[in-house]
Amino acid sequence: MPVFQRAVIVGVGLLGGSIGMALRRRGLANQVVGTGRRIQSLLEASSLGAITEHTCDLSAACAKADLVVICTPVQSITDYVKQVAACSLANNALITDVGSTKGRICADLPDSVHKYFCGSHPMAGSENSGVRFASDHLFEDRLTIVTPTRTTPKILTERTEQLWQSLGCRTVLMSPQQHDCSIARVSHLPHLIAAALAGQTADDLLALTGPGWRDTTRVAAGNVELWRQIITDNRLPVLESLRDFTNSLQQWISTLENDDQSQLIELLQRGKQQRDQASGAAHHAQPDGTN
Amino acid sequence: MPVFQRAVIVGVGLLGGSIGMALRRRGLANQVVGTGRRIQSLLEASSLGAITEHTCDLSAACAKADLVVICTPVQSITDYVKQVAACSLANNALITDVGSTKGRICADLPDSVHKYFCGSHPMAGSENSGVRFASDHLFEDRLTIVTPTRTTPKILTERTEQLWQSLGCRTVLMSPQQHDCSIARVSHLPHLIAAALAGQTADDLLALTGPGWRDTTRVAAGNVELWRQIITDNRLPVLESLRDFTNSLQQWISTLENDDQSQLIELLQRGKQQRDQASGAAHHAQPDGTN
Repeated sequence: MPVFQRAVIVGVGLLGGSIGMALRRRGLANQVVGTGRRIQSLLEASSLGAITEHTCDLSAACAKADLVVICTPVQSITDYVKQVAACSLANNALITDVGSTKGRICADLPDSVHKYFCGSHPMAGSENSGVRFASDHLFEDRLTIVTPTRTTPKILTERTEQLWQSLGCRTVLMSPQQHDCSIARVSHLPHLIAAALAGQTADDLLALTGPGWRDTTRVAAGNVELWRQIITDNRLPVLESLRDFTNSLQQWISTLENDDQSQLIELLQRGKQQRDQASGAAHHAQPDGTN
Repeated sequence: MPVFQRAVIVGVGLLGGSIGMALRRRGLANQVVGTGRRIQSLLEASSLGAITEHTCDLSAACAKADLVVICTPVQSITDYVKQVAACSLANNALITDVGSTKGRICADLPDSVHKYFCGSHPMAGSENSGVRFASDHLFEDRLTIVTPTRTTPKILTERTEQLWQSLGCRTVLMSPQQHDCSIARVSHLPHLIAAALAGQTADDLLALTGPGWRDTTRVAAGNVELWRQIITDNRLPVLESLRDFTNSLQQWISTLENDDQSQLIELLQRGKQQRDQASGAAHHAQPDGTN
């Protein structure tokens, strides 16, 4: 991976801060510039070593930048990409993002921007937000989905993949639409189920919750506004996956109503099999129960 | 807590092994006898220091025992309690268990047994089973629900609470029925939801799963036969909680269908509030995401 002269992080929170830290630790960027609206976050990022300099002025941050990573909430990404593309970037600049949705973001961008921009979604993060939770290890052994459109130059797609690989990720290519349908099922649906489960737990039962309930609902502790934007952006695929899920719960209900033991075993086995396979599919990147 | 002369663990797996280790480390028992059907498990428990002696002969194990803890799958507990109560126990013997269900177990016991037996359910464990995952810390800062019936002598209930407190637990008293209805919602329902979510994830999506999916589905990796027994034992309360949950998902579906932003915010906030409160209710015994 060639070293970036001037990498810019727009929105230095958990993900942006972790990118800055990883770029610095791995010697991948000479300058790591943090920018965003809140000076307090930039000062905190600076004191934590996530960035080497900071400014609230986006144009100043992006002047001669050869890498810009947009790490803001999903509904601001399109605007930021347009603004960044209008700055005096270096000739070979790459703009990418870390948004959890891709279809609307890519569709809303004008064609002219696609020569700079290739979307990406690192499957990392946690229910915590803020640069104080950032870590230079956050991306190691994680998967990043890179989502070129039909107009993205091949070289830009390759450079986006190289960026994430240089931060320790595996990468996979998908269209923005394929990304959104897949991620609805493996990320957005689980969030919504966790929130529904936590939300319907009565107050007097909260003190009885053990590790099972707490793991199953962990993601529900995430930032409400970030998740409102994600679910709204990806509303129709999420709705479809939720309808499918309620249908599968109907099967559990009839199994219990009929006390159908062989069906109960089959349902439990199917769940265990997919869970065990997923651990395998992730190459045991993280030991179960600790990630 | 008075030291036990001879503590017997029936079924030395994750929970039984952890009880043995904790009794030994805390100097709470002079002898810790492991018993069960499989000599291989007993030898492994012995080599890991979970027990001081072992035998496959239940009567020999229980001779003069003043504590017997049944740590077998739930559908065997009643039989074991009856068998143990018929052994030559010490006069002041206490029999308890660690089963995840309580109503049927207590109802199936003859009155004569209740002078020895008081049920309990430590809210600890993991998706792993087997003594190799046992730990002398497993019960620290956990909650154990103790479930006396109307015929349990008060002194026996107190001694059962003292036992768990001496292993590091907080304790709470409930009737067996109240236990089952509560635990259906905070433990059995989450298991079933995790299994349903994992089970309906298509093979080609497994490689895309990140920490959110993996936490939400972690418990689905648990032992199928143990969970078949638990869900079957507590079928009607689990069914009721599952029906309530599918009703709450209907609310999410209509919220998404109508793109009702204020309702979406309310649902997400409610989930986050209950999740955050549960972390508080558990006195931050375990940092989020690691338990």
